[in-house]
Amino acid sequence: MILAVCLNPAVDVTYVVDAVRPGASHQVSTVHRRPGGKGVNVARVLAQLGEPVTLCGFAGGAPGRWLRAALAGSGVIDRLTEIEAGTRQTITVVDDADATVFNEPGPPLTTDDWTRFTETFDELAKTCEVAVMSGSVPPGAPGDAYGLLVRRAKHHKITTVVDASGSQMLAAAEAGPTVLAPNRAEAGLPDAGPASLFAAASTLAGRTGSAVVISAGRDGLVASDGRHGWTATPPRQVSGNPTGAGDALTAGIARGLAHRSPLPDVLADAMALAGAAVAAPVAGQIDEPLYRELAASSSVQEVAPCP
Amino acid sequence: MILAVCLNPAVDVTYVVDAVRPGASHQVSTVHRRPGGKGVNVARVLAQLGEPVTLCGFAGGAPGRWLRAALAGSGVIDRLTEIEAGTRQTITVVDDADATVFNEPGPPLTTDDWTRFTETFDELAKTCEVAVMSGSVPPGAPGDAYGLLVRRAKHHKITTVVDASGSQMLAAAEAGPTVLAPNRAEAGLPDAGPASLFAAASTLAGRTGSAVVISAGRDGLVASDGRHGWTATPPRQVSGNPTGAGDALTAGIARGLAHRSPLPDVLADAMALAGAAVAAPVAGQIDEPLYRELAASSSVQEVAPCP
Repeated sequence: MILAVCLNPAVDVTYVVDAVRPGASHQVSTVHRRPGGKGVNVARVLAQLGEPVTLCGFAGGAPGRWLRAALAGSGVIDRLTEIEAGTRQTITVVDDADATVFNEPGPPLTTDDWTRFTETFDELAKTCEVAVMSGSVPPGAPGDAYGLLVRRAKHHKITTVVDASGSQMLAAAEAGPTVLAPNRAEAGLPDAGPASLFAAASTLAGRTGSAVVISAGRDGLVASDGRHGWTATPPRQVSGNPTGAGDALTAGIARGLAHRSPLPDVLADAMALAGAAVAAPVAGQIDEPLYRELAASSSVQEVAPCP
Repeated sequence: MILAVCLNPAVDVTYVVDAVRPGASHQVSTVHRRPGGKGVNVARVLAQLGEPVTLCGFAGGAPGRWLRAALAGSGVIDRLTEIEAGTRQTITVVDDADATVFNEPGPPLTTDDWTRFTETFDELAKTCEVAVMSGSVPPGAPGDAYGLLVRRAKHHKITTVVDASGSQMLAAAEAGPTVLAPNRAEAGLPDAGPASLFAAASTLAGRTGSAVVISAGRDGLVASDGRHGWTATPPRQVSGNPTGAGDALTAGIARGLAHRSPLPDVLADAMALAGAAVAAPVAGQIDEPLYRELAASSSVQEVAPCP
């Protein structure tokens, strides 16, 4: 069983309009709602792959109830912690030209919310092989939330994968998760090429003892476990919606670790999943036939460690 | 008891951002949510005035549950009909310059939804003196929904006030409600001055047998019952948020009719309520001290009927 942690899930709402005009009133022609947040996307991809997955984190208010109802039947086991404050919404307004996004702040957590969550996390960690933690953290969570959770997971002797950014990534890194898997923007290197990314991954891996995987979208990924290094480029470019591709990659890493596969094989498979997510219309899904096609030709190249 | 009809209530969400930029991702700094829809605003103003009021219409899904929970304790008696489809949301994005609005379409009603609603309406009409109907109609409602409801109300021998636009206003007019109360935009005359509005009100009153009140915001209102005519200008201009001022006016008309006050007195009082709503921060509220001040100096002038 994989434990997917989503501290800040969302109800992702998409509005279709003719054209976004600041100051105007728009009649929305079409509305889509789906469960969102990076950890939820990870859990959904794992469930689609038939991988047993339990979701923990926070859900509250009417949006939280909607999210839980929408997850029912997805295959994801829902162990979200009920909170008083309402789960955030994201609004993406799509017109012919662009997507305009409005992100609500996450629900403020109380100390009691966090305590109840960690009790659930400990209980679930006892029965899972891997804990995978992704995305932002709502206000009121400890500043080193991911660090605390990695230490708890290590106490339970389970494998950990963390995809976070900024201070939460640094807090996770200090606790030494099995794999740190930011994308290049989350790693603070939005415009870096493979060589710079690989240097950053090697340095971080050397300091933390974690394997570090930095994903770079269409440019593939770089990885280092401190002794060995790898780069990988996608077997072919896929057109579609890149939102959620990084979450499919993270899901692939978690699944590979749960299956105790060698890291190069894990990375090749995860990159195929990321490509197959681009071809799926919404985040949290993959195109299964494309996944099988890409997995057959996806590979990683071992590179010399940085001097 | 006044029966407020809100066929298409909404959860009104306000986002505060720095500046709306099409194609960009915005972090929302502040989120406000409140029950909305014209009929809900009418009911809330009546409740604030201490007037017994029951709300009927439709509510569904997570937003519908949120709306009902938010109305609890407001003094409005909730007799909304539960539906499967979700109550609509409106998103108003406020920056330093402007308000940008995204209106979701209303929830599609089934035939069974409408039937269950009309049963509730009939039951409530038996114990109410006035039915006041405001605002848009969700998809799936009959094309002459307000006409049907006015006829049902007349069958129960109760007074009716309708604030609607377009084909729904015309359908209501054909059924001859006690008062038709569109604003000038809803009446199809967004730029008309008092003389043209008064001519339109007189003509419509003559054809329908209804009293017709057309509100014109800061310019006041015109009214005709087919034999007598009135105009009124606000005793003074109030600065603030005009959203919901028309709903306060409609609430005032419904309350005056419930108290069997003469129409000129009803109109003067309703205009004071509209002004007091402008001074309140959100729709569905009035500034009570200002209402008392404005009511003391609000009056209407009888004008000669149109030739």
